[in-house]
Amino acid sequence: MIPVTDKSKLLAVSLELQNQKLHFKGNTDFSETLQIDYVPPFGDGLGFTSLELLLFSLASCVGSTFLLLTRRSGRTIDALTIEATGDRRQEHPTAFTSIDLYLRFKSSDLTQEDCLKAQHIAETSLCPVYSMVKGNVDVNFHYEITG
Amino acid sequence: MIPVTDKSKLLAVSLELQNQKLHFKGNTDFSETLQIDYVPPFGDGLGFTSLELLLFSLASCVGSTFLLLTRRSGRTIDALTIEATGDRRQEHPTAFTSIDLYLRFKSSDLTQEDCLKAQHIAETSLCPVYSMVKGNVDVNFHYEITG
Repeated sequence: MIPVTDKSKLLAVSLELQNQKLHFKGNTDFSETLQIDYVPPFGDGLGFTSLELLLFSLASCVGSTFLLLTRRSGRTIDALTIEATGDRRQEHPTAFTSIDLYLRFKSSDLTQEDCLKAQHIAETSLCPVYSMVKGNVDVNFHYEITG
Repeated sequence: MIPVTDKSKLLAVSLELQNQKLHFKGNTDFSETLQIDYVPPFGDGLGFTSLELLLFSLASCVGSTFLLLTRRSGRTIDALTIEATGDRRQEHPTAFTSIDLYLRFKSSDLTQEDCLKAQHIAETSLCPVYSMVKGNVDVNFHYEITG
């Protein structure tokens, strides 16, 4: 595997095909192995699909950006769950036409305005994954704040 | 979690923050849990980073496209490993400026020409993840075929 010494500069992953279909195992320097597969009939459902990994990538990047920004503003986030859904085109390439991110915060002092401010910063400068799909996919943000 | 009945139409994932930093656990209908975290000092390195997940997403999507196309042409792929690296911008957004995909096939009948043909189809129509980063990131393909 290609050695990575500074993840702020270079990232590397490796994948190895496991069978005669589409099951891959993925590795980084992290101790766990990532299972990747497609659904039948092309794959056997033995892992996450490539498009689910894109949703995880975007949702975690957006979530991290929100956490860093709102904590920096002095807000206390007691819990955060994110659900992400992606609607696929029915023609090739069967990419997402739109992605919906549902961010559910447990916080006594976070406001919708804080969320809209963080969203703007995420969209314009701070979220690298968002910037890589920008213009190609519509991303919609939804917030729920409970105390 | 939002129910998914047909992954060719809609995909859904859910994430839950695990600590006071950036560690998320991710779930789909697949039995395993995905660990996501950022490196210190923002995170604790308890999982894959968002950008590593983007590399896995793209590499597995490209790999699957190549496997489907070359098998359809009657080629026998005995093994496939993929390494993917991403160079990050040093300013925000710290996205990838370029991604390099190293595809290493073990095959007695696959040719470089087959690879270039599959690459063209992946780039123009068949790889959904590629289509979502197209125009925003340079993706370079490298091939090695051993018998």
